[in-house]
Parts: sequence; C-alpha cells; structure tokens
Amino acid sequence: MSFIDTLAAAWKRNDSLLCVGLDPDPAKFPVHLQDQPDAIFHFCTAIVDATADLACCFKPQIAYFAAHRAEDQLEALIAHIHVRYPGIPVILDAKRGDIGSTAEQYAIEAFERYRADAVTANPYMGRDSVEPYLAWKDKGVILLCRTSNPGGSDLQFLDVGNGEKLYERVARLVAGEWNGNGQCALVVGATFPAEIARVRAIVGDMPLLVPGIGAQGGDIEATVRAGSTVHSGIPGSGLMINSSRAILYAGRDERFAEAARRVAQETRDAINRHR
Amino acid sequence: MSFIDTLAAAWKRNDSLLCVGLDPDPAKFPVHLQDQPDAIFHFCTAIVDATADLACCFKPQIAYFAAHRAEDQLEALIAHIHVRYPGIPVILDAKRGDIGSTAEQYAIEAFERYRADAVTANPYMGRDSVEPYLAWKDKGVILLCRTSNPGGSDLQFLDVGNGEKLYERVARLVAGEWNGNGQCALVVGATFPAEIARVRAIVGDMPLLVPGIGAQGGDIEATVRAGSTVHSGIPGSGLMINSSRAILYAGRDERFAEAARRVAQETRDAINRHR
Repeated sequence: MSFIDTLAAAWKRNDSLLCVGLDPDPAKFPVHLQDQPDAIFHFCTAIVDATADLACCFKPQIAYFAAHRAEDQLEALIAHIHVRYPGIPVILDAKRGDIGSTAEQYAIEAFERYRADAVTANPYMGRDSVEPYLAWKDKGVILLCRTSNPGGSDLQFLDVGNGEKLYERVARLVAGEWNGNGQCALVVGATFPAEIARVRAIVGDMPLLVPGIGAQGGDIEATVRAGSTVHSGIPGSGLMINSSRAILYAGRDERFAEAARRVAQETRDAINRHR
Repeated sequence: MSFIDTLAAAWKRNDSLLCVGLDPDPAKFPVHLQDQPDAIFHFCTAIVDATADLACCFKPQIAYFAAHRAEDQLEALIAHIHVRYPGIPVILDAKRGDIGSTAEQYAIEAFERYRADAVTANPYMGRDSVEPYLAWKDKGVILLCRTSNPGGSDLQFLDVGNGEKLYERVARLVAGEWNGNGQCALVVGATFPAEIARVRAIVGDMPLLVPGIGAQGGDIEATVRAGSTVHSGIPGSGLMINSSRAILYAGRDERFAEAARRVAQETRDAINRHR
C-alpha cells in the first residue's frame, strides 16, 4: 500500500492527525537510560510503543542519529515500527536535496536501507533533484514549502512575481507539475496559520506535514482550521501535525513513556476538538 | 588553521584550483575491488593518494557512503586525508538544511564525527538554519547558490524584485549578512558561466565551489574567466573547481589510480592555462 493510502487509513483508524517526531537527544534521556548500550533505540521504541495507537505517523529525524553514530539504531527502530505497527507509516526526516545522480543514492538510503515510507526533501535544486524519489511510486515525497523557523522568511517569503511568494510558487510547482503520481506532500509550519491556508488553497487535498506546535509555539486550533480538509473521504484530515520534544521529554524519569503517552493523547485530543 | 586559510595555502602549494570529488559507486569500481571488504575506503584512499599533490581540496559526497552503510569508511577516509595530507582540507558534501536545533546535530555530524573542515548547506530555510554551522568559527560553510543541474532554474532563477534573481539574493545575503566571520563560500555551477560572473561581482573574493565540469559538461575556460579572482594575495584563485566522476572512473582496471591521476593532472593543467 502506498504511503498516502497507509497514512489515510491511520488517520481513520487511530482518529488522529498527530505525527510523533523522534528527535532523540541522549542528554535529555532519563538517567537510567543514559549509559545503556543502544540507548537511542530503547528510548525511541519505548516512545513508539506508548504512542502508536495515538499517532498517524512517526517521523525520525536522521540528524539526531547521525550525530551519535546511531544509523544501526535508526534501522532497527524503523524495522520495529514496521513489524509491530504495520499500519503506521514512517517518514524519514532528512530534508535531502542534490543533483539527480546523488539523489538516487539518497533515495536508496531512505527507501532501501532504512525502509522509510516517505522522505522529506528540499526543493531549492528543482525538479530533477526530486525525481529520483518520485521514481519510487509507493513512497511519499514531502517537500519543504513554508518552514516553521524564524529564518524561513529570508527566502520563502520573497515575492517572485505578481505578489506570489516563493513558498506559494513551490506549492504550485509541486501540486501542478511534480505530483503526477499523487505521492507528494508539503511541509508548512504551524507558526504561520495564514500561510497554511494559502497553501491549502493552492494544493487541493494534498497532505501537509505541519511542524511547530509544542516547543516551537504554534497554535493548534489555528493550524487545524487553516489546514484540514476532506482527504480519502475523511473529513477534517489532510494533516500530519508534528510534535517531537513536547512528547519525548514530557517525563524525565523511569516513567517517561507514560508521560509521553499522556502528552500525545492530550495533543491528539486537542487537535480533534477543532476538526 | 581555518578552512579558508588552509584552502588558500593549498591553492598556492599545489598550484591547483582542482577539488577532487569522492562519489564512490561500487558498481563502477574495478573488478578486483568489488568484493573486497571496505572496498569504498580502499577505492577512495587510492584516488586520494594518487591526486593529493594535484588538488586544493577533497569533497566526499555523503550520499554515496550512506546508501551503502559505509559511514565508518567515510570516517576512516577523512582521517586518512588528515593524517597523510594535513594541508588539504576536506569538504563534507551533505547539503544539509534544517531548523537550528537539528542543524546543531548536523554540525556535530560534520565537524565532530567526520572531522570535516567544511560542509555544504542549503539556504532555503534561512539564516537561523545556517547559524549552528557558523558557530564553528574555523570551519567552512558552503551555501548552495546557483546549482549545476537543469532543475536549478526552477527556483533559483526566479525574479525576486527589481530584476534580482533568487540565486543573486542568496549571494547577497551570504556575503552581506551571514559571513561575519569570513568562513562562507558558495556553490555556483560551471554550466552557467554568466552567473558565476554575476555571483563573483556580488561577493568580492569569497571562494566559490564550482561543480559541473567533466561529466556535467561545463566549460573550464569560461568558468575560470568568470570566477577567478585575487584571494589571499594569490592571483587567479578563489575557486574550487570540482571534478568527480571523470577522475574517479577514468580507468576501470587495476591501474585505475594512475588513470585518475592522469585525468586530475590534465584537469588541473587545463584550469591553470586560463588563470
């Protein structure tokens, strides 16, 4: 089943638009885990096991694994999710972007090595830098559009003609030209609800990955009102609303997974109140 | 010594603007290497040993290592270069781009784990996505500006106001606002010499990393004429002109390293004829 179909089924089955971001920072782990071998794997699988029925997808951020030589733990984590929770897709958050021959290697990394269902990618290098991911037709390709960080405006908010902003052009290119196989999605930050609404108006029912609630301060109600749509016949869907740190580090002792579950449930329910 | 100072010393000592790109594709290796353990490491170190006196820098492309679970070989390769050729800086070609907290992890990956002297990064997410790399003041930060692939024009060539193209705005932002510590450089493809000249006019003597000669068909003479400048008192410098595949796969038998050296020397000399 394709990434988009698996995602839609998870929206429905778990009644959830929540994407649980896996950004493991060992310095923030509970003390009892800190010196354990494969602590990153054990921490992340505990979070996964505690939240899998509350999430529509998981999103490991590869930088946190690479900084700690933990690629093998990332492979094992994704395998764990696929075996235990086959209905929950995994997005590899890598934000890759390179010429075609190199992008082919990154696609092998994401889809063959890590067996991710989708990957995030950067649109700055244009269509041929994205095509090697699109060639994997069952996989999702999630392009950066309007990012949640302050510097996101430096380029993305530039006027590229007739009042169109760069992020709007990206949305229009992806929806109109790059999405021939219906496998694309876009990243639009929760810190800019008005721009979520603009993107939604451009891209129809394309799924949007929305980071920026929780630690980054984005507003859940405004995000859902601006971005939700009817997708695959499911009203109030079309969004993957990501929370990472607020869930992962809700508790700092041996019961951290319970604390994570509590925050994940509160977040899912807060989202659902506005759908 | 900083990346930029090491680079300038290498321009002078090796009388070379040639950057040797290390994009190891095991399917293209000589047969005698293909089934060897750590073939990627052995192939790349043979290329390095054959070309180190002809190059101003080496640029391993991380995707080729990641696709083959060869991160340990990449670490060993960079350590080999540092030990044997301490005057030749190493650029980790990773084209990372993410929010600050994640970029901190990517900086640790590039500078602490791999001990690269510089890293390539994507400007789409703006200044705060680049600051974690800039915090490593001796390291080089090489931002994508005008890339050599056909799709590079999709976004980079958009007019962002008063006739300024997006890539020119990136050059202006990097030169004017992000380069406070003098550690930045830009990627500008050899397939667009007129745009190399535009970037050079904007950024003063900032080093430019120029991919796209060799396999991608860019013109050496036009590149050198458009991009070279006086840097650190060295006339006809300021460029890192990359060649990867044309050097790496010049020979396909046991004498591949000699063939690589021959092409590297021809390329360095062809560049020097126009300085």
